Amino acid sequence: MGRVTCNISISVDGFVAGPNQSLEDPIGQGGMRLHQWAFDTASWRAQHGTGGGERNVDSEVLDAVVADVGAYVMGRNMFGPGRGEWDLSWSGWWGEDPPYHVPVFVLTHHPREPLVMQGGTTFNFVTGGIEQALEQARAAAGDRNVDVPGGAQTIQQCIRAGLLDELWLHIVPIVLGAGERLLENVGEPVLEPLDVIGSPAVTHIKYRLSH
Amino acid sequence: MGRVTCNISISVDGFVAGPNQSLEDPIGQGGMRLHQWAFDTASWRAQHGTGGGERNVDSEVLDAVVADVGAYVMGRNMFGPGRGEWDLSWSGWWGEDPPYHVPVFVLTHHPREPLVMQGGTTFNFVTGGIEQALEQARAAAGDRNVDVPGGAQTIQQCIRAGLLDELWLHIVPIVLGAGERLLENVGEPVLEPLDVIGSPAVTHIKYRLSH
Repeated sequence: MGRVTCNISISVDGFVAGPNQSLEDPIGQGGMRLHQWAFDTASWRAQHGTGGGERNVDSEVLDAVVADVGAYVMGRNMFGPGRGEWDLSWSGWWGEDPPYHVPVFVLTHHPREPLVMQGGTTFNFVTGGIEQALEQARAAAGDRNVDVPGGAQTIQQCIRAGLLDELWLHIVPIVLGAGERLLENVGEPVLEPLDVIGSPAVTHIKYRLSH
Repeated sequence: MGRVTCNISISVDGFVAGPNQSLEDPIGQGGMRLHQWAFDTASWRAQHGTGGGERNVDSEVLDAVVADVGAYVMGRNMFGPGRGEWDLSWSGWWGEDPPYHVPVFVLTHHPREPLVMQGGTTFNFVTGGIEQALEQARAAAGDRNVDVPGGAQTIQQCIRAGLLDELWLHIVPIVLGAGERLLENVGEPVLEPLDVIGSPAVTHIKYRLSH
């Protein structure tokens, strides 16, 4: 059976989004700087259907973290804004061909029919909570991994429930000073560093979690 | 001229001390776990005049961070408890032969004569603030570095004032959940990762700071 993984960019002071998140600024003020290192890689650009980019250790890490992913589980806010009934014209932030290319399970309180996108991505909407979403994702992924890209609260739920097996932190050398923290309300997981890879842009640490 | 450096153990969720610090528990509940990796090294034990310990990459990092230190600057709370006039019977937490072996400059609001200890350590008490303490420490260190071991508020002052050149974070794979954070109220320093070294116990990242 595959593992449940997460890989996420985090500032050196522990934030995964800047302050004042909004529809116009979904990862908060300054938050986009957390992802610049990824945007610059060949791996990210290939996943998003654009060419070019750097072939460096950061690109290799991004290749590795998605290589064996058979399904994703994400929170509602990562899929789209709002909290109530679905606006059925909304199909995610990523256009017609999202960068996932496998089934994605979106946590929500509001049922919605699956959305089949181009390139292998299907968004499935799960109303039974994180455990049900992971169960469905595991079934879809088979022997491959289930990755939980975010948001922070969804990752926290996974860690707190003892359901996350591996966490890649991409530690970006910026101080955001405020915003949304990743590692709070997560209980007391036991972490073990499995790998560490550095570049001038970011430091990647892979942890195994146990509980 | 030497650099102003800091090296400090920090939990993966950003704390350098646990909650509820007290005279009996000066680094807070659970805070001692931040330092266990260091206690286990041959380098730490040699600095503290005890034998044995592991000769591993963590020990090599500790050797490197103290190799070129010619003076230290520390906050009053790191030297001893209390805030008012000095109890002259107090000579630090470390016994007759403290692990510094060079001049140490202690920030305080209350003048006190220098304390000459065994093994090369002299504690000097500076009432003119962080800039004056660093100036005196630089003069004492000559071409060697000045290290700022703590506490957190003293390190924050240095970063905020643009006076810290290098920061080694020893990221310990534990979640403390509460306590004293290192990287808050530090302004917006520009960090550049210079080196990253991992072991099963801890991940060391060396940053260059500019402002």
